[in-house]
Amino acid sequence: MESPEAKTLGVGMVGYAFMGAAHSQGWRTVGRVFDLPARPVMSAVCGRDPEAVRAAADRHGWATAETDWRSMIARDDVQLVDVCTPGDSHAEIAIAALEAGKHVLCEKPLANSVTEAQAMVEAARRARERGQVAMVGFNYRRAPAIAYARRMVERGRLGVLRHVRVTYLQDWIVDPEFPLVWRLRREYAGSGALGDLGSHIVDLAQYLAGERLIGVSALTETFIRERPLPAGAVAGLGGSGTGGAARGPVTVDDAALFTGRFGSGAVASFEASRFAAGRKNSLRIELNGDHGSLAFDLERLNELSFHDHTEPAADSGFRRILVTEPEHPYLDAWWPPGHALGYEHTFVHQARDMVLAVAEGTGPEPSFEDGLQVQRVLAAVEESAEKNCVYTPVPV
Amino acid sequence: MESPEAKTLGVGMVGYAFMGAAHSQGWRTVGRVFDLPARPVMSAVCGRDPEAVRAAADRHGWATAETDWRSMIARDDVQLVDVCTPGDSHAEIAIAALEAGKHVLCEKPLANSVTEAQAMVEAARRARERGQVAMVGFNYRRAPAIAYARRMVERGRLGVLRHVRVTYLQDWIVDPEFPLVWRLRREYAGSGALGDLGSHIVDLAQYLAGERLIGVSALTETFIRERPLPAGAVAGLGGSGTGGAARGPVTVDDAALFTGRFGSGAVASFEASRFAAGRKNSLRIELNGDHGSLAFDLERLNELSFHDHTEPAADSGFRRILVTEPEHPYLDAWWPPGHALGYEHTFVHQARDMVLAVAEGTGPEPSFEDGLQVQRVLAAVEESAEKNCVYTPVPV
Amino acid sequence: MESPEAKTLGVGMVGYAFMGAAHSQGWRTVGRVFDLPARPVMSAVCGRDPEAVRAAADRHGWATAETDWRSMIARDDVQLVDVCTPGDSHAEIAIAALEAGKHVLCEKPLANSVTEAQAMVEAARRARERGQVAMVGFNYRRAPAIAYARRMVERGRLGVLRHVRVTYLQDWIVDPEFPLVWRLRREYAGSGALGDLGSHIVDLAQYLAGERLIGVSALTETFIRERPLPAGAVAGLGGSGTGGAARGPVTVDDAALFTGRFGSGAVASFEASRFAAGRKNSLRIELNGDHGSLAFDLERLNELSFHDHTEPAADSGFRRILVTEPEHPYLDAWWPPGHALGYEHTFVHQARDMVLAVAEGTGPEPSFEDGLQVQRVLAAVEESAEKNCVYTPVPV
Amino acid sequence: MESPEAKTLGVGMVGYAFMGAAHSQGWRTVGRVFDLPARPVMSAVCGRDPEAVRAAADRHGWATAETDWRSMIARDDVQLVDVCTPGDSHAEIAIAALEAGKHVLCEKPLANSVTEAQAMVEAARRARERGQVAMVGFNYRRAPAIAYARRMVERGRLGVLRHVRVTYLQDWIVDPEFPLVWRLRREYAGSGALGDLGSHIVDLAQYLAGERLIGVSALTETFIRERPLPAGAVAGLGGSGTGGAARGPVTVDDAALFTGRFGSGAVASFEASRFAAGRKNSLRIELNGDHGSLAFDLERLNELSFHDHTEPAADSGFRRILVTEPEHPYLDAWWPPGHALGYEHTFVHQARDMVLAVAEGTGPEPSFEDGLQVQRVLAAVEESAEKNCVYTPVPV
Repeated sequence: MESPEAKTLGVGMVGYAFMGAAHSQGWRTVGRVFDLPARPVMSAVCGRDPEAVRAAADRHGWATAETDWRSMIARDDVQLVDVCTPGDSHAEIAIAALEAGKHVLCEKPLANSVTEAQAMVEAARRARERGQVAMVGFNYRRAPAIAYARRMVERGRLGVLRHVRVTYLQDWIVDPEFPLVWRLRREYAGSGALGDLGSHIVDLAQYLAGERLIGVSALTETFIRERPLPAGAVAGLGGSGTGGAARGPVTVDDAALFTGRFGSGAVASFEASRFAAGRKNSLRIELNGDHGSLAFDLERLNELSFHDHTEPAADSGFRRILVTEPEHPYLDAWWPPGHALGYEHTFVHQARDMVLAVAEGTGPEPSFEDGLQVQRVLAAVEESAEKNCVYTPVPV
Repeated sequence: MESPEAKTLGVGMVGYAFMGAAHSQGWRTVGRVFDLPARPVMSAVCGRDPEAVRAAADRHGWATAETDWRSMIARDDVQLVDVCTPGDSHAEIAIAALEAGKHVLCEKPLANSVTEAQAMVEAARRARERGQVAMVGFNYRRAPAIAYARRMVERGRLGVLRHVRVTYLQDWIVDPEFPLVWRLRREYAGSGALGDLGSHIVDLAQYLAGERLIGVSALTETFIRERPLPAGAVAGLGGSGTGGAARGPVTVDDAALFTGRFGSGAVASFEASRFAAGRKNSLRIELNGDHGSLAFDLERLNELSFHDHTEPAADSGFRRILVTEPEHPYLDAWWPPGHALGYEHTFVHQARDMVLAVAEGTGPEPSFEDGLQVQRVLAAVEESAEKNCVYTPVPV
Repeated sequence: MESPEAKTLGVGMVGYAFMGAAHSQGWRTVGRVFDLPARPVMSAVCGRDPEAVRAAADRHGWATAETDWRSMIARDDVQLVDVCTPGDSHAEIAIAALEAGKHVLCEKPLANSVTEAQAMVEAARRARERGQVAMVGFNYRRAPAIAYARRMVERGRLGVLRHVRVTYLQDWIVDPEFPLVWRLRREYAGSGALGDLGSHIVDLAQYLAGERLIGVSALTETFIRERPLPAGAVAGLGGSGTGGAARGPVTVDDAALFTGRFGSGAVASFEASRFAAGRKNSLRIELNGDHGSLAFDLERLNELSFHDHTEPAADSGFRRILVTEPEHPYLDAWWPPGHALGYEHTFVHQARDMVLAVAEGTGPEPSFEDGLQVQRVLAAVEESAEKNCVYTPVPV
Repeated sequence: MESPEAKTLGVGMVGYAFMGAAHSQGWRTVGRVFDLPARPVMSAVCGRDPEAVRAAADRHGWATAETDWRSMIARDDVQLVDVCTPGDSHAEIAIAALEAGKHVLCEKPLANSVTEAQAMVEAARRARERGQVAMVGFNYRRAPAIAYARRMVERGRLGVLRHVRVTYLQDWIVDPEFPLVWRLRREYAGSGALGDLGSHIVDLAQYLAGERLIGVSALTETFIRERPLPAGAVAGLGGSGTGGAARGPVTVDDAALFTGRFGSGAVASFEASRFAAGRKNSLRIELNGDHGSLAFDLERLNELSFHDHTEPAADSGFRRILVTEPEHPYLDAWWPPGHALGYEHTFVHQARDMVLAVAEGTGPEPSFEDGLQVQRVLAAVEESAEKNCVYTPVPV
């Protein structure tokens, strides 16, 4: 596969925590599984703590470690910058990378504000004219079951869409003594369940529906308004509390519930929460059209439920398609039917699609425009929540 | 069981369509399964069409048939009036029956408007002083799994409640050519999915939570705004269309989506629709508290899902309790463990609880007050839907 | 429905425990739900204890009580005898009833031995010439999902059958201190899990396959060989132990595992056990053919799983058919789609089919011949188990 | 992680088809996820076709390619030989590798005959004295849910074991025109569903039970006895048929059904088939003890079902444990709770356990002895199947 003259694509990644580990797995594996027009090379990883980033490079297989993302962006052996930091630094890094002539893959949500996202879209637009590509990391689009669901919608298997129904439920902060990690602070995370989980389900709903929300009505809640400060620095997901007596305010939402309308007349409901005890990573989406329905549950990500409403009622029902056939998206590169893929495969597929987009020089999806649009929905959600749930149009 | 001197309770039922058949099954079976302080006697059934009501009496086991509900109410052998008509006549019949000194069981929703419901509550209040009882027929409370879920909430197994999440989805009018039956006309049905399905889930949510909604935000939609007129008279659920070219306007909602707040701080989401292809009678409810979660699906009504969040995470998960043990509500009267009950058993249980309430002279639940409260929530939903989803308090 | 001249069918039932209660429910309800050529009249119930049988008559709605089954059989107002006693008295009662010119419905298993069953078949054959009908009560054939599965097999939806796989698992005697009730004693029950549960699954497997087993290989086991004697007389299912120190030997199997061959070349596996902790009444059956597969679980008896193997692999999967459509067997008489039936409905349907068979004078299925054939399979199973599992042909 | 002086472990792999790809994924990933005492180095891959093996090396990340396994074994930079060839060459390669002083990981089944397996055990025994380790690749033991199930059994959560029930169902040869690939020929594969699927479930049953089968009774079947010869050479799983008119005999079983006994008195049932339409890779196992039950389904490999029979019946039921908590086996190295792993992770975990075993110099499990014991069970199954299903002891 790797003939001497094979094209390569140097990747530099900023951030190396949970998302960084997942992306590394994607970059490391993609060329081993898929036929690609260019071979990704894991050139450099970047982080502020020299020792930690060096360890991360060794662990995850990056050739070198950097402590200044500006230096990393400047490297010749980096053609693609992969942004895995918290949302507050997305705009700065991504724009700089684009302006430096690099392709950019940016974790979701695209930014912590619409303004930042707009600037990113502008930068991406200019870069596109130079042949660069930019993608936002809504990785769940790359779960084969989701990609196949989209294909079924495109083929008209649902007919006229009536309903989209999505929940994304977790339970990792149910305990009031769970510490005040960065994800619970507005200055770092932008918002809480809304940005973290809600952005995923807004993107999925729009992606699968094939159209955009035109307005929303929302209600948000913060159940626990003060939490113990974390022991060390601003910790990640697993940050053990035990900060002694010191407490700080939770400045993001714990849960967000909203409804919305699509331009076509379909309606949608959304719920994102970190307070659903027993639901670990439960993203469920269902679409109902007049010809059929689709349902998906991330906790069973190799399965897709499909009801064909054009069949005789007596013989019809939701069927469980095991999305592991070679005809399914991405699957011809993997294992025989019935052999399950996992969460991290979405990152391998994302890496594949990014490499293909770079090779073709065409804008990959979800584009920064898509990311901005999600941001606009989230902003409308927050506005509606502040204004007594009033229906709030999403600007086009 | 039936000693000569055994007390009896004469029942007169108004209406004999779908609900009438289900209630008949309840009255006919209850004394055969449960030990009761009084034996229900199916004295009379009432309907406008003499021939049809006579046939219904024979079919369902009512001793006599009446064509005038006022006459039926006046009968000495009727002590309890069971109102199974469409919502537009509930108030008139129920109030007259209460004023005539009868106990009343009234199908849900209690009425088509808050005003009517208030009058009914007034009548029930006066009647209560005379020892009469009045109940509204939210029969799903009598599914053993729901009754047991309530018991678990009462025992504190969920801890502090955070979320209630309910959907009630059907698909019987997905076809735009389905005719304009009475359930699709405001003058008969009051509302559409909202009153028919939404009333059930509002009642269940409040019942299981053990508290009341204080405000809602809502969005409703009518996807198909004109339908063929039914061939004959205003038909029931199964009314075959084929009304030729004539069409009429659908004057109720096809779907209602709403969110709400409980006084305790918990939040709730609701969705009722008749446009969810493949969902036949899919009422799903989930409650999340900080000590545990419960989930139920009416299509699998013998099962209750429970997650105990106080257990070690590695050993915990949603367990499927088969609610068929003798310790479960109503179950000691039925079959051995693992032997399923069905939809109609909820009516047998409702009849049982009604007979017990009559014997004890205490107001059974759900009371007319409960029915009025549901009506108020529905009215707030409609108001919010008209006012751009704005959060609308539910009057106390 | 009940015109004065309407034909009636007087029923006399022997036995009034678990099965008697279930059959009573069937007889009481059938005419209220189905259109029948004759109206069943619950003339008499029979049992040895005068007081208890009187109470049972009152409770279950039988007009009179008898203490001698021979007298009951002799009654003019009894045209059909329903045998609900333990297996050791089936032959004597059923044969006498047939010889007295009555129709007979006999609980399963048909008898405790092949010899008895043969005599019953003989009696049924002679009676058939006189226009009498005889049926054995394998009620699960009347679960709509099973009846519909049979219809799908008949239509060729499975193609060439390869596999039948059935387990019937319960757990009511897992506790070694559960008492030695009649079902654990060979002299009353004939066998243990094999006759009680195994007879059901052998019948279902043959019914759904549409062909008969030609040979079996079996292994049986009695895990707990001594149990406390029950406090009172030989108790039923729920007999509370507490027999003090006295213990007696368990003389039946606790579990039976067997494999078999059909004449067509398909193979089958069976497992019946009362030691599967957590499985309350878990009868699961799956059939695999080269065009499709069917699966059923009695704990979810309103559902049928179907996989259509002629569809494109990428779109296929087991679909969950909710067997509640009017097109499904028995369902047009019941509730709208999505409204679940329960265990006892199988007895209502059995009663219906029995009444129809009487009216038509044609032998209903499962016939006594079918019951005998099941008995022969069970005998072959026992013989194989005694002979080191050796493959044992089932006599034709 | 990789300090200059870090220990390494050179791996040489023989075979690079389906299993080779999966093992490669394991070796490539293991050091990126787990902390290991030695870093695996993918030194060489070996195959007969020079071009193909060179491409495989490039694709899967092996440093060099070899065409003669004897040369590969002789290399200094290979300390561990990973045997991924069909079963007919396992013994020769593994024994040679062990005698050359290498550690060996050998795919399952250990060999195609008990005799070969015995020789392998002998070689492993001698090698063990020299500090070498040998493991057989029953990778499903490394699914976290299976490993956790074993832990629960060890902790006594099931109490006295009564039943083990396992099926492994696939459907890839349902079509009679599927070609005669090597897996359908005895000379290459040893046996059919029995060796391929049955070996897995025998190993899992014994592993989870913590004890060995002492005897079995079996029935096997070959439904399609002739198939088209494959177009090219002996193809793999996906070999497209189209061999024109030429056909050859299928010399292995299509399905194997067997029952067995454990020394403790527990009984077991097994079914392995490639003719279960709609079941893609459906390995289901259930264990019932007097204190609880466990169930697992490979198509949902992140889940484990557990029923605690010591809880009150009214509150108990099978709970679905999402085996993605840090406390679960292997999981602390992966993603946050609720993020699914896939099939290939079992190979990463297998590689990890192999590296640890090498470092500790202690025999890893499943040992070659375990593999031989499985082989003995399979041989007893074949013997029983030939001898009319007679119960056949498994030699100790």
